[in-house]
Amino acid sequence: MIDIAQLKQGNRRALAKAITLVESKLDSHRLEAQALLEAVLPDTGNSIRIGISGIPGVGKSTFIEAFGKHLISLGKKVAVLAVDPSSPVRGGSILGDKTRMEELSREANAFIRPSPSEGALGGVAQKTRETMLLCEAAGYDVILVETVGVGQSEYEVAAMVDFFLVLMIPNAGDELQGIKRGIMELADALVINKADGESINLATRTQQHYQNAFHLIRHGTFWTPRVETCSALNKQGIESVWQMIVEFQDLAIEHQAFAAKRAKQNADWMKKLIHQMLEQRLVDNPAIKQMMTELRADVIDNRVTPYSAAKTILDLL
Amino acid sequence: MIDIAQLKQGNRRALAKAITLVESKLDSHRLEAQALLEAVLPDTGNSIRIGISGIPGVGKSTFIEAFGKHLISLGKKVAVLAVDPSSPVRGGSILGDKTRMEELSREANAFIRPSPSEGALGGVAQKTRETMLLCEAAGYDVILVETVGVGQSEYEVAAMVDFFLVLMIPNAGDELQGIKRGIMELADALVINKADGESINLATRTQQHYQNAFHLIRHGTFWTPRVETCSALNKQGIESVWQMIVEFQDLAIEHQAFAAKRAKQNADWMKKLIHQMLEQRLVDNPAIKQMMTELRADVIDNRVTPYSAAKTILDLL
Repeated sequence: MIDIAQLKQGNRRALAKAITLVESKLDSHRLEAQALLEAVLPDTGNSIRIGISGIPGVGKSTFIEAFGKHLISLGKKVAVLAVDPSSPVRGGSILGDKTRMEELSREANAFIRPSPSEGALGGVAQKTRETMLLCEAAGYDVILVETVGVGQSEYEVAAMVDFFLVLMIPNAGDELQGIKRGIMELADALVINKADGESINLATRTQQHYQNAFHLIRHGTFWTPRVETCSALNKQGIESVWQMIVEFQDLAIEHQAFAAKRAKQNADWMKKLIHQMLEQRLVDNPAIKQMMTELRADVIDNRVTPYSAAKTILDLL
Repeated sequence: MIDIAQLKQGNRRALAKAITLVESKLDSHRLEAQALLEAVLPDTGNSIRIGISGIPGVGKSTFIEAFGKHLISLGKKVAVLAVDPSSPVRGGSILGDKTRMEELSREANAFIRPSPSEGALGGVAQKTRETMLLCEAAGYDVILVETVGVGQSEYEVAAMVDFFLVLMIPNAGDELQGIKRGIMELADALVINKADGESINLATRTQQHYQNAFHLIRHGTFWTPRVETCSALNKQGIESVWQMIVEFQDLAIEHQAFAAKRAKQNADWMKKLIHQMLEQRLVDNPAIKQMMTELRADVIDNRVTPYSAAKTILDLL
């Protein structure tokens, strides 16, 4: 059993146990986890949730360490969660460097949790959403959700945070450095890391390029995505990234967009879960699964229209 | 009954009747329509499907008229389909100008069909997909699918065509003209129309701006989106738009990407239809519909987690 009172007091052991429960794939644990989440729900929501994305090599853990320590120096409690199994949070599995975020992990007001293993319904992102709620109940003010941005994970993280930040590195030319299509749509800010030494000018040029690109895009909201530079290594520009996020939050609240975004995220998430569960029912039915595979091939080879294939599947349910 | 032989011979009356059948919302018609579509399926696919998007005022119908007539001069048969009820194809409902595309509509090798009225499962886009197949069976080489790009319609059109073209107008500054976020992700080409008279320099500058923006984006495929200028009014630059599309098609075929994209579109569409039909079952169930409304409010007000709300709904099914 999880001690909810202890969890709410910020007891790290109680929090860790609660997260393990939420991550469990056992059906019995799932029920208990839902009861726990419903119980702490009134104590959640009092944080700013920040998604941090960036491919390996951009200095993501150095940035998170510097950023997290800055927040702690301001009196914040910081939780760092990872979405991907290959995230640096997991202990530097990519570069084999076990000492990443070592300083941050020693802070009493920091809580670092690697990503859960995959498999359960809703995937890793579902667990991370729920873990986020537990961290909030335990009194964490800033939740950093980290992703390497492989596949769909960027979209999933962007859909669960208040502010989505993409880390990049300075690069020589437009053609050399490109960003994944769609990222401009997700990002509230790009931060060019490693703006130090000989790369400072390059970083400024990269910044200008992306700033121009953002200006070409129409924005319906109160916020035009910003492009900043920093050097996580030299701890330069870190405060101004935080200042930007504070400014964003103030503006969002002023425009009644902060709570509205979260409410929409929750409603969207509920809808997505219903879809996933319905799909799961289809997959769990061997006859339907078999028929689906066959019909998919028929559709691809143009023997059956997608509509009539879908109709056939539904008639089996 | 539809005369399939006549349809395949390109008889316009048979084609029009077939489309009306496909657009019908009656269940009995739906069965007949599916039988018809399955029957003509082997004769479909032999066209290039081009999506054309652009907000009102970009000169979309002037462009389609000039573009369509150019294709006909090359010996092509051209079908123009509209996705939105407010499309110019419908007869210029926006500007009240009934004479739009008048010249094109008089061509024996052109077939212009306004968008169906909304309401049926899968919406207008579903009907347009199927109408596209009927036009192909009737021997049309080029299918132009036109959308004003309101709401989701751009995404729906991009998901059913081989090439997605966005029409724009020259504009003074970056900030004044913006394009909807996400459009850069969809477009295979931007075409700056109205590059004539005093606007020629402006059009060239606009072209350069967007070309730069596209270069900033990483492309995984064989094709980097192009930005062209044209004057549909003066029939300038129209051939080079077509040349670009021919080049795209050649490259896509060379990279085995042409058929692969269509197969993926069909498989995705089948999946989407299954989701839509499943959702329809939820909506058709009054008890579930009621519960969904209540739970959605609970989720938005943070009283229930999205997961447990979704679970409650599924348990009712």
